[in-house]
Amino acid sequence: MLIEKVILSEERNVTLTAYIQEVGGEFTYIDKRPAILVLPGGGYQMCSDREADPVALAYAKAGFQTFVLRYSVGANAAWPQPLEDYEQAMKLIRDNSEKWFLDPNRVAVIGFSAGGHLAGCAATMAKNKPNAAILGYAVVYGEDARKCNPTVPDVIAAVDRNTAPSFIFASRRDNVVPIRNTTLYTNACAMNDVAFESHIYAYGPHGFSTAEPSVQDPATDMCPRIGDWVEDSIAWLKENLGEFSTDGLRGPVYRFHMTDDGENFYSADCSLLYLLNQEQTKEIVSPVLNMIGQAFAAGAGVSVEDISAALGNLTLRDMLGQMHIPTSQIEEMDEKLKDLKKI
Amino acid sequence: MLIEKVILSEERNVTLTAYIQEVGGEFTYIDKRPAILVLPGGGYQMCSDREADPVALAYAKAGFQTFVLRYSVGANAAWPQPLEDYEQAMKLIRDNSEKWFLDPNRVAVIGFSAGGHLAGCAATMAKNKPNAAILGYAVVYGEDARKCNPTVPDVIAAVDRNTAPSFIFASRRDNVVPIRNTTLYTNACAMNDVAFESHIYAYGPHGFSTAEPSVQDPATDMCPRIGDWVEDSIAWLKENLGEFSTDGLRGPVYRFHMTDDGENFYSADCSLLYLLNQEQTKEIVSPVLNMIGQAFAAGAGVSVEDISAALGNLTLRDMLGQMHIPTSQIEEMDEKLKDLKKI
Amino acid sequence: MLIEKVILSEERNVTLTAYIQEVGGEFTYIDKRPAILVLPGGGYQMCSDREADPVALAYAKAGFQTFVLRYSVGANAAWPQPLEDYEQAMKLIRDNSEKWFLDPNRVAVIGFSAGGHLAGCAATMAKNKPNAAILGYAVVYGEDARKCNPTVPDVIAAVDRNTAPSFIFASRRDNVVPIRNTTLYTNACAMNDVAFESHIYAYGPHGFSTAEPSVQDPATDMCPRIGDWVEDSIAWLKENLGEFSTDGLRGPVYRFHMTDDGENFYSADCSLLYLLNQEQTKEIVSPVLNMIGQAFAAGAGVSVEDISAALGNLTLRDMLGQMHIPTSQIEEMDEKLKDLKKI
Amino acid sequence: MLIEKVILSEERNVTLTAYIQEVGGEFTYIDKRPAILVLPGGGYQMCSDREADPVALAYAKAGFQTFVLRYSVGANAAWPQPLEDYEQAMKLIRDNSEKWFLDPNRVAVIGFSAGGHLAGCAATMAKNKPNAAILGYAVVYGEDARKCNPTVPDVIAAVDRNTAPSFIFASRRDNVVPIRNTTLYTNACAMNDVAFESHIYAYGPHGFSTAEPSVQDPATDMCPRIGDWVEDSIAWLKENLGEFSTDGLRGPVYRFHMTDDGENFYSADCSLLYLLNQEQTKEIVSPVLNMIGQAFAAGAGVSVEDISAALGNLTLRDMLGQMHIPTSQIEEMDEKLKDLKKI
Repeated sequence: MLIEKVILSEERNVTLTAYIQEVGGEFTYIDKRPAILVLPGGGYQMCSDREADPVALAYAKAGFQTFVLRYSVGANAAWPQPLEDYEQAMKLIRDNSEKWFLDPNRVAVIGFSAGGHLAGCAATMAKNKPNAAILGYAVVYGEDARKCNPTVPDVIAAVDRNTAPSFIFASRRDNVVPIRNTTLYTNACAMNDVAFESHIYAYGPHGFSTAEPSVQDPATDMCPRIGDWVEDSIAWLKENLGEFSTDGLRGPVYRFHMTDDGENFYSADCSLLYLLNQEQTKEIVSPVLNMIGQAFAAGAGVSVEDISAALGNLTLRDMLGQMHIPTSQIEEMDEKLKDLKKI
Repeated sequence: MLIEKVILSEERNVTLTAYIQEVGGEFTYIDKRPAILVLPGGGYQMCSDREADPVALAYAKAGFQTFVLRYSVGANAAWPQPLEDYEQAMKLIRDNSEKWFLDPNRVAVIGFSAGGHLAGCAATMAKNKPNAAILGYAVVYGEDARKCNPTVPDVIAAVDRNTAPSFIFASRRDNVVPIRNTTLYTNACAMNDVAFESHIYAYGPHGFSTAEPSVQDPATDMCPRIGDWVEDSIAWLKENLGEFSTDGLRGPVYRFHMTDDGENFYSADCSLLYLLNQEQTKEIVSPVLNMIGQAFAAGAGVSVEDISAALGNLTLRDMLGQMHIPTSQIEEMDEKLKDLKKI
Repeated sequence: MLIEKVILSEERNVTLTAYIQEVGGEFTYIDKRPAILVLPGGGYQMCSDREADPVALAYAKAGFQTFVLRYSVGANAAWPQPLEDYEQAMKLIRDNSEKWFLDPNRVAVIGFSAGGHLAGCAATMAKNKPNAAILGYAVVYGEDARKCNPTVPDVIAAVDRNTAPSFIFASRRDNVVPIRNTTLYTNACAMNDVAFESHIYAYGPHGFSTAEPSVQDPATDMCPRIGDWVEDSIAWLKENLGEFSTDGLRGPVYRFHMTDDGENFYSADCSLLYLLNQEQTKEIVSPVLNMIGQAFAAGAGVSVEDISAALGNLTLRDMLGQMHIPTSQIEEMDEKLKDLKKI
Repeated sequence: MLIEKVILSEERNVTLTAYIQEVGGEFTYIDKRPAILVLPGGGYQMCSDREADPVALAYAKAGFQTFVLRYSVGANAAWPQPLEDYEQAMKLIRDNSEKWFLDPNRVAVIGFSAGGHLAGCAATMAKNKPNAAILGYAVVYGEDARKCNPTVPDVIAAVDRNTAPSFIFASRRDNVVPIRNTTLYTNACAMNDVAFESHIYAYGPHGFSTAEPSVQDPATDMCPRIGDWVEDSIAWLKENLGEFSTDGLRGPVYRFHMTDDGENFYSADCSLLYLLNQEQTKEIVSPVLNMIGQAFAAGAGVSVEDISAALGNLTLRDMLGQMHIPTSQIEEMDEKLKDLKKI
């Protein structure tokens, strides 16, 4: 491993520290690695060492190229400077993907507390969005965030369908950043069909970092699960960004959006109810309704309305799959739908 | 272990099955056990076997007395019948605590899907509230819940400060019960100062139960963490209901409410900002403000307003603790506050 | 689940308790289950309740049909009575495989302490051998075992190539059954090419059972890993006996013997060195030596003797695989070897 | 973190790479760290990168100062050169404990395969013994070790009471280093009263390192538990070397020797049977025999001989503790024993 420190602004004391691991050689099947950019917390007054190296080491151990950004704080923290530091760092990482043996399309960001606010901004409003975002006890609700930095934007309101897939964790008994920051963010993800995973632990302090005894006093009153986010987030990152394999980085392993309802095209991955309600697609999909009606009503005596109400969340593909319709037939319908020009 | 089946209503086919373990003998330090009542799902049309025994066995293994309620479904599911079945079962369990070697004040409930709706009602609106509630991919949002049973109430709206401590989990890609059910519930807990823990896993189907291969086909497309809720919920239950020890069941290990702001008395566990804003308590607490002002402003030059804004979530006790004020002094202030009659 | 108690001998107070779970119905892909027979410990003076139900529940939770045998102890413990109780129980279980929904070829045994001695006898010298054996802090070394029951045989000496695959665990600081019992058993497995897994934890008492707080006082001085054997043994059992799947119980997933050297036939799974040393097989295998010689010596300058010394543990199949020889060619050689009559 | 590379021998290409983490600052309660020296494997022909950085990172993440030694291999591997490289490295580490912020009495060693042989030599025969040793699929049995380096000593035969506490792991289906290497080592530890923990996993290849997908192809046929040794060894190291705490590094948490029988003094931590058999101690201990006799025989009718046979492994302290003799009385007896001059 090599450690390289890049000065982004001497004046504002902004630095990017890179922890770069080899590829090739005995690592026969690895020619590039996923990467992660760490944004420590500190109330936009400092960048905490407790959320820098210990976090970088966790992802380095898992095989990631890892970067720590010490962004503008204190007198330099006025918005949008911290976000611009992020943009500069992310651009540098992606531009140097060959030199640093990483895949520019597999770069995540992780931020804690105020750094979590910055990571949330990266996930929602940056020009250089990360491919995945991890938010640790992040202060993303405007009202709360502005208590430590009055110039910053609300992240919650910025969540939309294009927000980066997010992994969010916190302690419910955090007495510095209220837990509503985390629940509002997950709720916004749910409402906007953003891929996410979230873990809220019953109790523990703010700022627990990795909760390793070398970072957080093990005598702290905190629930034993509170450090689980480290391994869980690594597994989640690999599901989102790709896992190492002899065929290169492989993934993602699941679809980020629940449905294609929000896209500018139609497909078999739109929800059935949605397709039934569009003038353009009604006709193509109506035979399905008959199939369902026959399949279900035969044994159950429920009306088609009941069914569409109860199962309206299912995509056309899932619904047909459940009825054991051959894949070829589903693909055919998918093509027909995609051929339509969505108005 | 003994298995006992109690018929609660022959007509509606309502039964309570009890899995009762010994106490005493070689279990020298156990004279009673915590208990849990399992409410299987099934859209209020059935009670699924996949969420009955396999779930009961998980908690039985952890030492709990375990009960499965098969409540009124189908033609008998009109509200409030299912909730009345729950009430009857919970009363029976607590009334028979001696016979069944359990502590009537340590009885949890767990429900899945529609059973999670019922568990949510138990946690919020039952006469016989459980001491803790676990909601698995529960359909607690009224609009969604009424798709499977048009007569049921909204759980989200019923969450208040007196809701039972809750453990909530689901798959974000649940395509039957939308994930908003879970995020809205956790958000309601956050807003009402209800103790909770929550785990939302990135992907997996509805109805995964314990996700053991003996319950859910291991070839299912689901994230490997999805079964973690079982062990996590057991640990959480023990933190809430009490862990076995030579001194009897010991716990809970953390305070359920963040602050006493919502109580009908004042205490050192009210938030500092709240106490500063009450006519009755302002005077008692104002010296603290000076102490803080001195402590912080000395080195930092920030105003008292800044501090109270930034740290307004801290309780008086936590704030004084952070400034290393002796416990005796904190207790003294706590008593003074409690002596006041809250208007 | 049903609990059924079968009396095997009223006089000697020998009973078999069965915990039977359903198949079919909602458990669509399950028509039979693996099974396990639990042999509690107690120095052949008693059968401990702490190693009965809590253990049965752990495997029941994982989907196993589970049985607890209370065998002959105290005045009735003279050998071979306990082993005969085991034989009777195992025969009953396999004979009733249809009634009890289990696969008679997937029945394991688990024993603790003196029950571990009995399980060790089952694995090595029984007529009705189990398909896998789990030994918990077992007293399997004759000299030690005879301290609690002077009539019992030495298990270590009985380990041979036909011993059942074994999972062995203990606490190294066990001050009742010396840890040599466990190391001698694993060593005997190693020397006799018996499949095994073993976990020896740094510290903890004798008789910790599942180490759940409901079984072992959580204040006990024992290492936190000591209960890991429960989940690890379940995973191991499924690797050995078969995991649930939509195609029925699937497994085992690995070969039990390292090589076929001890079999009464030749194959590509014999070690290369062994085949080179047999008159009958020398000729068939000698071309391989040339291939290896060419492949390695080319770059390395080492002699064929060096290679065969260093890599003598590799089977012919593994060696050819490493040199990327096509599978068809390996199969051909395998057939040729199997066609020989081993003298 | 800083990375520093020290050249120990330019000629033989021997280097020590140090990964050094900060102390103090925000890490308020840390003024020094435990350390570990990594010895990669490679058959004494090379030092594998797969067992260098990935291993160092695992312990660095846990808060250790970490060192990788690339020792003499190939033409320079003749014994005792590799051991002398180790001695030089370990001396350097301990001599620089202030500079590198580590506790010289809390330095472990970990070695893999041939590096595990070297670690085993360090644990048994070095001048600068480590405070704990981790052996990964180590080739410690002379006959096997000499296949890759004909000059090396047998480690098994060198195990004695003064061997460093050892953590040993391997795959049972290792087809390069036979599993007997591991079982013989654990057996030697058992027979010589050496503290150890061991994990042998059912199947997997030689050389799996941390088994992370970034090190070992995840498609490898290996049991899912095979990487558990990483976290388990970290926990074990902290039990042996000390865990971080606000009172400094705290530990070890258990006694390394089972009894003091092998020491050059007597104490209450000698086994009861041993003390009963020594002329010098017989008299002091004989009253205990009466106490036991009374306590047990009262209810049980067993002879004192039976008891001493059955419980001969218990120390005097443990035996008295079990009979609820006051600690003060045990301490008194302990002192009396220690006052004797052992002949």
